[in-house]
Amino acid sequence: MRILVLNPNTSQGITDRLMAAALPAAAPGTEVSSLTAPRGFPYISTRAEAQIGGAIALEMLAEHHADYDAAIIAAFGDPGLFGARELFDIPVVGMAEAAMLTACMLGKRFAIVTFARSLGLWYQECVESHGLTSRLAGIRMLDEKFGSVSDVQEEKMQLLVDLANQAVEQDDADVVILAGAPLAGLADKVRDLIPVPLVDQMAAAIKQAETLASLRPRKAVAGSFRRPAAKPTSGLPPALQARFEYR
Amino acid sequence: MRILVLNPNTSQGITDRLMAAALPAAAPGTEVSSLTAPRGFPYISTRAEAQIGGAIALEMLAEHHADYDAAIIAAFGDPGLFGARELFDIPVVGMAEAAMLTACMLGKRFAIVTFARSLGLWYQECVESHGLTSRLAGIRMLDEKFGSVSDVQEEKMQLLVDLANQAVEQDDADVVILAGAPLAGLADKVRDLIPVPLVDQMAAAIKQAETLASLRPRKAVAGSFRRPAAKPTSGLPPALQARFEYR
Amino acid sequence: MRILVLNPNTSQGITDRLMAAALPAAAPGTEVSSLTAPRGFPYISTRAEAQIGGAIALEMLAEHHADYDAAIIAAFGDPGLFGARELFDIPVVGMAEAAMLTACMLGKRFAIVTFARSLGLWYQECVESHGLTSRLAGIRMLDEKFGSVSDVQEEKMQLLVDLANQAVEQDDADVVILAGAPLAGLADKVRDLIPVPLVDQMAAAIKQAETLASLRPRKAVAGSFRRPAAKPTSGLPPALQARFEYR
Amino acid sequence: MRILVLNPNTSQGITDRLMAAALPAAAPGTEVSSLTAPRGFPYISTRAEAQIGGAIALEMLAEHHADYDAAIIAAFGDPGLFGARELFDIPVVGMAEAAMLTACMLGKRFAIVTFARSLGLWYQECVESHGLTSRLAGIRMLDEKFGSVSDVQEEKMQLLVDLANQAVEQDDADVVILAGAPLAGLADKVRDLIPVPLVDQMAAAIKQAETLASLRPRKAVAGSFRRPAAKPTSGLPPALQARFEYR
Amino acid sequence: MRILVLNPNTSQGITDRLMAAALPAAAPGTEVSSLTAPRGFPYISTRAEAQIGGAIALEMLAEHHADYDAAIIAAFGDPGLFGARELFDIPVVGMAEAAMLTACMLGKRFAIVTFARSLGLWYQECVESHGLTSRLAGIRMLDEKFGSVSDVQEEKMQLLVDLANQAVEQDDADVVILAGAPLAGLADKVRDLIPVPLVDQMAAAIKQAETLASLRPRKAVAGSFRRPAAKPTSGLPPALQARFEYR
Amino acid sequence: MRILVLNPNTSQGITDRLMAAALPAAAPGTEVSSLTAPRGFPYISTRAEAQIGGAIALEMLAEHHADYDAAIIAAFGDPGLFGARELFDIPVVGMAEAAMLTACMLGKRFAIVTFARSLGLWYQECVESHGLTSRLAGIRMLDEKFGSVSDVQEEKMQLLVDLANQAVEQDDADVVILAGAPLAGLADKVRDLIPVPLVDQMAAAIKQAETLASLRPRKAVAGSFRRPAAKPTSGLPPALQARFEYR
Repeated sequence: MRILVLNPNTSQGITDRLMAAALPAAAPGTEVSSLTAPRGFPYISTRAEAQIGGAIALEMLAEHHADYDAAIIAAFGDPGLFGARELFDIPVVGMAEAAMLTACMLGKRFAIVTFARSLGLWYQECVESHGLTSRLAGIRMLDEKFGSVSDVQEEKMQLLVDLANQAVEQDDADVVILAGAPLAGLADKVRDLIPVPLVDQMAAAIKQAETLASLRPRKAVAGSFRRPAAKPTSGLPPALQARFEYR
Repeated sequence: MRILVLNPNTSQGITDRLMAAALPAAAPGTEVSSLTAPRGFPYISTRAEAQIGGAIALEMLAEHHADYDAAIIAAFGDPGLFGARELFDIPVVGMAEAAMLTACMLGKRFAIVTFARSLGLWYQECVESHGLTSRLAGIRMLDEKFGSVSDVQEEKMQLLVDLANQAVEQDDADVVILAGAPLAGLADKVRDLIPVPLVDQMAAAIKQAETLASLRPRKAVAGSFRRPAAKPTSGLPPALQARFEYR
Repeated sequence: MRILVLNPNTSQGITDRLMAAALPAAAPGTEVSSLTAPRGFPYISTRAEAQIGGAIALEMLAEHHADYDAAIIAAFGDPGLFGARELFDIPVVGMAEAAMLTACMLGKRFAIVTFARSLGLWYQECVESHGLTSRLAGIRMLDEKFGSVSDVQEEKMQLLVDLANQAVEQDDADVVILAGAPLAGLADKVRDLIPVPLVDQMAAAIKQAETLASLRPRKAVAGSFRRPAAKPTSGLPPALQARFEYR
Repeated sequence: MRILVLNPNTSQGITDRLMAAALPAAAPGTEVSSLTAPRGFPYISTRAEAQIGGAIALEMLAEHHADYDAAIIAAFGDPGLFGARELFDIPVVGMAEAAMLTACMLGKRFAIVTFARSLGLWYQECVESHGLTSRLAGIRMLDEKFGSVSDVQEEKMQLLVDLANQAVEQDDADVVILAGAPLAGLADKVRDLIPVPLVDQMAAAIKQAETLASLRPRKAVAGSFRRPAAKPTSGLPPALQARFEYR
Repeated sequence: MRILVLNPNTSQGITDRLMAAALPAAAPGTEVSSLTAPRGFPYISTRAEAQIGGAIALEMLAEHHADYDAAIIAAFGDPGLFGARELFDIPVVGMAEAAMLTACMLGKRFAIVTFARSLGLWYQECVESHGLTSRLAGIRMLDEKFGSVSDVQEEKMQLLVDLANQAVEQDDADVVILAGAPLAGLADKVRDLIPVPLVDQMAAAIKQAETLASLRPRKAVAGSFRRPAAKPTSGLPPALQARFEYR
Repeated sequence: MRILVLNPNTSQGITDRLMAAALPAAAPGTEVSSLTAPRGFPYISTRAEAQIGGAIALEMLAEHHADYDAAIIAAFGDPGLFGARELFDIPVVGMAEAAMLTACMLGKRFAIVTFARSLGLWYQECVESHGLTSRLAGIRMLDEKFGSVSDVQEEKMQLLVDLANQAVEQDDADVVILAGAPLAGLADKVRDLIPVPLVDQMAAAIKQAETLASLRPRKAVAGSFRRPAAKPTSGLPPALQARFEYR
């Protein structure tokens, strides 16, 4: 089984973080590969960036989807996810989606803890777009400067743990998600410092991609997730053009 | 007052429809200009196309926003709207948003009537993204082949009127929106055939753009719609790059 | 175009506030007139007062609607609005409704800031009655005595600005509405002290009344906002009686 | 224990129906009296009429509340209820409210069956105003002419029973409310023709008024249902003026 | 009229508390009896305990239902309520349900105040299962050790009053429910210390059981609350077996 | 990895169905065992039966949990799930929960298709208890007699396929779940007859149990899913008693 970890950000450092969390989670026989966005933003953190980054994710998938059994859009706001689910025949999972749905099986209400205030409302909209608002205990955000986004999980580990504990104590969270690609892999390190289950977003995404790939659901040929009907396009990258034009 | 009607589709014929509905609605002193997408899809009708078309809308705005007091994203699903609202200093209105909010002032529950079954669930998600689900009486869609999307409003006029009347009688709609850029201007022609107020999406969008432009709200410098902080980008069209990089 | 600003309160001082905010917002060619309630309460601030004040608003409209192209019920809780929308042929806009719907085009979530604790839950119910709860960031209320309701905006300007800033910082409001007729016109004065767009309720109401009047929607003759069927009445003021009895 | 059945309609015939259903439901020792609105509408059936009829209900209560231990606003849309609950010291129950809350104890989802299409959306808003939308299986309405509103329950009995049965079979209603003052007392007659519990609105209202009167809850002196602070009024009926002015 | 107060806990001390609150609330002619669970937990406070305690409540009802006109499941989370409503012909009321629905007639939003932090989320789920989330102002919980659960209302009276007052002041509660069987009867003692109506859960339950018993609704023979069709069972207590097997 | 398929029904035939669907879905290295309820109902289909069957599920887990890495409660309404999640240290997944969350990754809205009308509202409540109502396209139920519950999937295959297709065409379902233990394994057989992805409840449950077991989340020691504090019990089966009493 071949799974693609698609990082819609241009930072190789973040891809490395993601893969470091992905590999230990993969089952024997699962082959995990990664792609880093060839253009766009080092780190998507606003709606405008997600609009563009999501389109870039579709470009990347148009070029590479044929080589994989399932793909993961490995940014917490799931940019481009629903479009990808229409456009391609393989299952596509969002990293936020996988983390949240997995968290739903470990308690009633999950908290999201992340490393920058600016991410809060975008993540909130992501939760809403998945219809999971009633399962959300709250979003807690670090409100401090940090050095590099690639190393924020080491630099601010204690503060992030504190936020997680506040989410449990004050927001009645049953489960905590440490959210945002730069925090991939952190859950495992701080597992014993937080009294409820933690969900590692990347590990959850790998398991859910394996789940979907192994269930081999058929591609919808009806309903709102069937592949868009062929239509002419102009000015799109070749692979994307070919996918939309059925060529 | 200069208002931009931005058609994120590549069809000039649709732009013409939009402008034909826009101009009579404009107040004296309002100058309305249009732009047709230089690349993308002739007519956006799926999530995947909206992901890409919305990114193209941001490209177009990056090039032209400085010449306008307000802009309208003139496609019913509002592709790129929330990102545009972050990225630019002028007010940006979605055509669906303007139609729905205007409809809210004419009754309790509005119906959306459109010309293709495939648009239904995408429009449903648009309603949800604006938090207006409780105001929606229902979405009724033509389920028939038609010749050209540019002329569908003439070809299927009677069937669209029938759907609107069904929405009133069976779904208890207080107001009807004839939705989708190809239906711009239709409301005026069929006004007397439907027993509740109709909202013309383009006329509503012009009036709401005028409203926002004349109120001259300040650009947010805090909160989730402030302009994204400067960051390096790669591979973006020059104007968009400049906007993200503050150059 | 003739627009009526209907103050359902009996305070001429509040009408003056309202008109001072209304006039600068009106487009050239818009003629704005006001009416102050001839009976009732100096300032409506509870459900019981709104029940009666809303009925008085209907009496006032029954006498004067024929002279106007649109009317505004210029009290923040919109007393009598939905009944007026049934009973009269001209568009009728609520001041709260206009402010909230306009705010929706400037961000995702708006805050309401007002000058008395007792108004909070009534305003909350107003938000609910418009189906906009998911767009509300929160309601913040001054919890202090003040001299005269007509001058509260000068007396407490700094405290109101502080509340607006708290709404941005603590409730993640994207937009702020300074609510309650006595605060009409304040937005313009404090625009630079608050880092997100402010909506002036009266200015928004004028623009939305102009929008509706210029769109000239037909009066519903079906659905829940058609004019109530003729029926005999007893003991109503003559103009209202005539309106209900179709005389 | 003295309970007031306040009919905000001017039809004595409806009051008679209400009392015929009320008296058998009253416990030994409960004294039930009725009042018919001295002015207003023979039968409230729109938002506009409810705005005015609710104000008239407050006038009636202002004159008579001191003589009762609890009052019932005996029209299905509960006109004036929330204002009355603020303004008076005795418990006030709405007939729709009592029927719906009682129905909640007999199943998960209740249906509302009524005798005129025009009542549907007004009742829907009543359900929403009580926050009970998730408990509503649906509203079914007779869509036929009838002779007199006072006798509609006899004239259309079979059709109303059919609607109730459809609500059970097609809408999965666990309980049925036969709604609208003219249907008071019908439940008892058709009990055996419908396979789920029926709630008689007037009988439920009597029991709930007894419940509140016997629990003797204190009048709120804080919160949103405390009595409105004294303020001057003008042009109100004397008893209402006295109540608002604390005289 | 014979009403059963069924305590699904095994503590006789709690049954005594419940009866002390129940008896003064009963109308003349109402005969109130109690049963204490013969097995199970001294005090149900988690979902696991409610799963089992609810099954025990069904066992108790299977043995005793024939002797009563109505029954009350007298634990605040209403364990077993919906199953009991299916299985038995007499009306069955939950103590939480009765308290919440009664509170709904005394204000818009009720607060729940209880004596242990662990009860909060279970009660929250109870509110949700009744579809009353929009009526809930909040849940406030004592976060302190106490001696005996049977005497916690005396030991912590002042702290509980403080929580109730905080719910009014900070959460805008219109009504307060002192929740959990060990607090039965407390409302009456602290009535004057809290500025909004208090609902005593047991008194409310008695009145609602009387209401249902006196309305004599028919047992559903259709819909989701009809008695389950006969089927063989194994290993159930004899009375329960007989009830399921129609013997 | 050892996974327990716990059938809370007493029918070995259903267990066989479940295992036939479970085994092909299990990964290499996953050892799947089953348990059939030693007492209770042949097939749980009402709230009352689920109350008791869920308690029996807890008894079964109390005896066997120590031998497994994860458990599945293999009945579609998830009886006893939330209590089990509190009480035991291993992850416990509900079969309905697993099916629904997996479906969420394959589209926006899932339909539930089942074989008996009586299951509809119970399943609806199950969807609500998981907070997934906004993801539900609808529930469609066979409304016909059938021979044996164990063979209903063969007997009514074509009718079930028809219902699934209606859910796609009329309810706009993106994904279909064939629900109820007796339908386990059916999805695979009818895969090509339905134009959207099908989720097999048992296969999904196996994959989700593997996911949770391999992520090895810690058992909550805080929050609402921590193990209930030790307390004395009476009259419980020994293993359950020991689990509650920490012996």
